Amino acid sequence: MAALPKLSGWDDTIVALATPPGIGAIGVIRLSGNKAFEIIDQLFNSKRLSEQPSHTLHVGFIKDGETVIDEVVVSIYKDPRSYTGEDLVEVSGHGSPYVLQQIINACLKRGARLAKPGEFTQRAFLHGKLDLTQAEAVADLIASNTDISQKAALHNIRGGFSLQLKELRERLIRFSALIELELDFSQEDVEFADRKQLHELIDEVDSVTASLINSFQLGNVIRNGVSVAIIGKPNAGKSTLLNALLNEDRAIVSDIPGTTRDTIEEVINIDGILFRLIDTAGIRQHTTDVLESVGVQRSLEKMRQADLVIYLFDVNEMTPNELLAIKDDFTTQQTRYLLVANKVDIAGENSARNKFKDVPDVIFISAIRQNTENLKQRMTDVVLEGKVQTESTIVTNARHFHALQQLRAALQDVRKGLQDNIPGDLVALDIRRCLHYLGEITGEITNEDQLDYIFSKFCIGK
Amino acid sequence: MAALPKLSGWDDTIVALATPPGIGAIGVIRLSGNKAFEIIDQLFNSKRLSEQPSHTLHVGFIKDGETVIDEVVVSIYKDPRSYTGEDLVEVSGHGSPYVLQQIINACLKRGARLAKPGEFTQRAFLHGKLDLTQAEAVADLIASNTDISQKAALHNIRGGFSLQLKELRERLIRFSALIELELDFSQEDVEFADRKQLHELIDEVDSVTASLINSFQLGNVIRNGVSVAIIGKPNAGKSTLLNALLNEDRAIVSDIPGTTRDTIEEVINIDGILFRLIDTAGIRQHTTDVLESVGVQRSLEKMRQADLVIYLFDVNEMTPNELLAIKDDFTTQQTRYLLVANKVDIAGENSARNKFKDVPDVIFISAIRQNTENLKQRMTDVVLEGKVQTESTIVTNARHFHALQQLRAALQDVRKGLQDNIPGDLVALDIRRCLHYLGEITGEITNEDQLDYIFSKFCIGK
Repeated sequence: MAALPKLSGWDDTIVALATPPGIGAIGVIRLSGNKAFEIIDQLFNSKRLSEQPSHTLHVGFIKDGETVIDEVVVSIYKDPRSYTGEDLVEVSGHGSPYVLQQIINACLKRGARLAKPGEFTQRAFLHGKLDLTQAEAVADLIASNTDISQKAALHNIRGGFSLQLKELRERLIRFSALIELELDFSQEDVEFADRKQLHELIDEVDSVTASLINSFQLGNVIRNGVSVAIIGKPNAGKSTLLNALLNEDRAIVSDIPGTTRDTIEEVINIDGILFRLIDTAGIRQHTTDVLESVGVQRSLEKMRQADLVIYLFDVNEMTPNELLAIKDDFTTQQTRYLLVANKVDIAGENSARNKFKDVPDVIFISAIRQNTENLKQRMTDVVLEGKVQTESTIVTNARHFHALQQLRAALQDVRKGLQDNIPGDLVALDIRRCLHYLGEITGEITNEDQLDYIFSKFCIGK
Repeated sequence: MAALPKLSGWDDTIVALATPPGIGAIGVIRLSGNKAFEIIDQLFNSKRLSEQPSHTLHVGFIKDGETVIDEVVVSIYKDPRSYTGEDLVEVSGHGSPYVLQQIINACLKRGARLAKPGEFTQRAFLHGKLDLTQAEAVADLIASNTDISQKAALHNIRGGFSLQLKELRERLIRFSALIELELDFSQEDVEFADRKQLHELIDEVDSVTASLINSFQLGNVIRNGVSVAIIGKPNAGKSTLLNALLNEDRAIVSDIPGTTRDTIEEVINIDGILFRLIDTAGIRQHTTDVLESVGVQRSLEKMRQADLVIYLFDVNEMTPNELLAIKDDFTTQQTRYLLVANKVDIAGENSARNKFKDVPDVIFISAIRQNTENLKQRMTDVVLEGKVQTESTIVTNARHFHALQQLRAALQDVRKGLQDNIPGDLVALDIRRCLHYLGEITGEITNEDQLDYIFSKFCIGK
């Protein structure tokens, strides 16, 4: 690991509740730093934990002086074999917030201080246990709520992204070495670095960077979901469709506490993509009956909020010409949309398909019969556009995205320099800029403010 | 431990989330039963956990087949050295409800089943790791939210109550042995059991039982708090008093998530006793201006709800005779009450005390100056009545209270039998009834329905 920036205040001992707040069977308190064992030895009397081997569990009482606070299990991890890379102690107590607070207070009284959000992971980073992309993936994994977001985070925790960046970095360093070799012999006007090969190398690095940048659109979807507006005339069947979409999935979503509680949105998980339905309450109350005329003007606001618009219509009430006009409107507005013909159960699907044979890409469903599989398939298709490769890296983090964009700009400068035959030392400078942006992503180049900002978005105790 | 009742369905392997639901740094999943290691060995591939020593910690990945679910720490505890007395595995994963649910699902797929509320503790009881009073104290500790409720629960977890019951039990068994010895020699009309000593023994057991029964009033307070109604004429200063009482304490109460959120009551913690203020909203809106005349009739309803009534009056507006009449009313109603003279800052405390020198037990305060220490002291005094001995057993559980009452009735029968000189075999029967009620408390005598009821009130994962 490269030399670490000198950060203040990370040589002390920190403590925090690591489990969610509230009443549970157990709660876990984390204590990390060079006084962790000194503190726990004062609170846990039945044996000296500092003398026990790392990675062992110990049952006993936590006492503050003579006062018994709780019967607990203590897990001990010794520097450097811990999450933080420091001495680390975890106290599993009974899950009473009152009791857990007293254990924390007892640690504070003996010289620990309350951990800031993400500070345990920040210490792991500072001790070289994780690079910055891995650390950020820890927060992503905790926030993950679908198969794909979980996979993307795990891929990064396991160092998948870092590895790819390391490869880019090594290529650039090799390139840089050749250029700098030339500088040493600049009097003799030799070219160690074959310009054609250099061009190819830059093209290759640029192509990987570009594909990482492109993956961010999907990465953003993975992280934040896709907002969807269901619009259509009255009686098109919007609330029936909403129920059909929610029906199967509701059990899965509501199994996960906290997924939907804080929002008024309805959320559907289709093949690991979260679709967030805009203004669901409106749909339920039949107040989103926009598009009453052919035009889409009245629904512009709603559409502007949405990543994807589902335009639902009653197949028996719509004419092909009217639909073509609506389609043109959508195309003009540059909206991502799906045209969905409902109530095919009444006239029959073949007759419906025949009626709209001149309008491309219509999806035929029967919301009332919960026959919406083809719609769901198209919803994920339109988002993924065949891009999902769970084993490849998907950039999900805006910070990485911006650094990659800057990297790409610097790569263009290198390319232009080579084309213009500028002196090698100037090309070398541009390459160093490339290395700088790469280093920013993995945390080899960083500053205290930036780190504080990154980790402040973590939860306490992590 | 006595022979256990044969219970169905506790020889399989159970799994549950043990930490509170929601997003946190970490979440812990518990897996207990004879297949716990077989299951974890399928999910955790980097080493065979079944072959590792008990009380050790292991870092690695949880995989469901080829799919990586999470990077975790696994704690292993081997039968019988575990909380449940069975093979027990705890998986600490990243605190994403989605990820944790997948770990649980992977366990379910391999033969575990979801644990019922309290089932881990129920197994601990069934394997003789805890008796029933200790198991019940686990739930009390988790629910504890004051110093005293925590102490009472810990006292019982550590076996304090059980020990006291064991002593009673041993005395009764000794007594019973003497009586039964007589029966063996009944032809010879001997009395091994000195009737006077027997009487003394029964008196002693009865006295301990009585004091345990008496402690329940306090125990109930510890568990449920004391409901308080603040009543008085308009402008007596009720809402100012409410604010003064809440002021200091609010920080402490609101530090504890879940303490007050679910209720519309205001809760004050004074020296470890929770006082729950009835109809606080009413006080804040100045609508509880009862007792506008001298009589207390209009506030009867409110007073009936309250364990304690604070009658607040403006010391400058009240006459001693009027106050004596109010006091008489309270006494007639058999209400526990405190007479509180407010606004002593205006006329001065000495003059106020002098004015009401003929009315006993008036408490003088200045709510506006937050001078309420003497009121708080009296509030706790009137509840505790000097009864708090944190090292002695306080019965907090209604089930124990009822069993103790039945024990006491049976003891009276023994006493009466001795007085009436009934045959020894009948006395022995009454003593066996006493032993039965004692055994019910500690769980030596129990039945499946009763156990299921007791543990159903626990949280999942405990």
